[in-house]
Amino acid sequence: MTGGRLAVVGLGPGAHAWRTPEASARLAEATDLVGYGPYLHLVGDLASQPVRHEFDNREEAERARLALDLAADGRDVVVVSSGDPGIFAMATAVVEELHRGDDGRYAAVEVSVVPGITAASAAAARVGAPLGHDFCCLSLSDVLKPWPVVEQRLMAVATADFVVALYNPISRHRPWQLGRAIEILREHRAPSTPVVLGRDVGRDGEATRVTTLADFDAAEVDMRTVVIVGSTTTRAFCDAGGRTWVYTPRSYPAAAPS
Amino acid sequence: MTGGRLAVVGLGPGAHAWRTPEASARLAEATDLVGYGPYLHLVGDLASQPVRHEFDNREEAERARLALDLAADGRDVVVVSSGDPGIFAMATAVVEELHRGDDGRYAAVEVSVVPGITAASAAAARVGAPLGHDFCCLSLSDVLKPWPVVEQRLMAVATADFVVALYNPISRHRPWQLGRAIEILREHRAPSTPVVLGRDVGRDGEATRVTTLADFDAAEVDMRTVVIVGSTTTRAFCDAGGRTWVYTPRSYPAAAPS
Repeated sequence: MTGGRLAVVGLGPGAHAWRTPEASARLAEATDLVGYGPYLHLVGDLASQPVRHEFDNREEAERARLALDLAADGRDVVVVSSGDPGIFAMATAVVEELHRGDDGRYAAVEVSVVPGITAASAAAARVGAPLGHDFCCLSLSDVLKPWPVVEQRLMAVATADFVVALYNPISRHRPWQLGRAIEILREHRAPSTPVVLGRDVGRDGEATRVTTLADFDAAEVDMRTVVIVGSTTTRAFCDAGGRTWVYTPRSYPAAAPS
Repeated sequence: MTGGRLAVVGLGPGAHAWRTPEASARLAEATDLVGYGPYLHLVGDLASQPVRHEFDNREEAERARLALDLAADGRDVVVVSSGDPGIFAMATAVVEELHRGDDGRYAAVEVSVVPGITAASAAAARVGAPLGHDFCCLSLSDVLKPWPVVEQRLMAVATADFVVALYNPISRHRPWQLGRAIEILREHRAPSTPVVLGRDVGRDGEATRVTTLADFDAAEVDMRTVVIVGSTTTRAFCDAGGRTWVYTPRSYPAAAPS
């Protein structure tokens, strides 16, 4: 049997102007697209009219298995991710299934990961450079990890004074976690600490907003938002044209963070 | 005076296939490129033949000031960064200078940041999905921050069990810091913990290699390498074709990390 190909492709945050030529090329060649419905929609029309296999958000392992099975049958498959597929997205699910199917089932499949711009980079770009110094990317979802681990990590990044980008900040099934996370960060940082809310960056209806830890309101955040909380050195200022900028300076003061 | 434009543009890790259409469009329109010599070289030929202002690696503030001054004179300026300009790159330097020049000097300049794929995303894509769970990006350079802060952060990410991507891992002037960082991580993680060395990913002479904390040798690393050290859950395996994959599972075990 001739094996096909499987690429886990990152579309970037959504805008076509942020989709890499490699991602576009793989999409144009695909016979099959596998993905969460809204991400398949982001792909747009393709002249090649690939078969579209649409899944719900939570069925990551199923998506990965179908994609690998299709590729093992000789198809040219793209698993569609938004952002970077390697950051809280589909690359891990595919490699996990590849590992599980290590009995040789997928031996003839050529698997690759096509990187993309992740949501935190895009939101950061809109306001300047909040990620200009050491930072962490942390998922607030406790669906696949225990909440105490999330809290322990938040305390670690807070005390070590990292900027932190919160992915999957809130959902219908996880309504209180974001508030608790912000509480932990408030214990270690000033009320004036800049917070960036990047919602649907690069997509229709984009809404990027700068607020502070004091004024932060979880009601403004949904699952399509990435939340960037500054460190003790992150600064915000308003330029002559009224635009708000946020940056974390390259220099860090000699005194140890509190 | 009519103000010009300044875009801080991320080329991505180097390969043209990873350069976004937005980055290419801004480069094609620029009258002036400002950047570190090797990054200007990565840009390649442009039909518009912009003026190229070449700088040394360390002159970030000077680069930012020249770029803002050119734009204030009405030029269409691109500050060239590799990777993502917001991650240990030029966006912060430009926004810092914008803040410093807040007397209205740059009021008519339209400043923007064009995001790109950062080195850690590209290196991760080559081997699967080592950044598939919570991770930190940490610069090992102690040129602009005190080394004790670096150590404190390493200990925090080690104890809270983050995957960590080390940027600026080593240089002629900073020969021992990487070894010390690995020592700290070894105290908290198994010798078999996967380590990914991504050198010049997406460029000529790319060399991406998977090793372990036990076998790690700082002599294999230079300033053009990003080093990704796995968490306690990160796994490596060899597929039927002999290719080594690394991933950090989406699920985290219920027991708290040690």
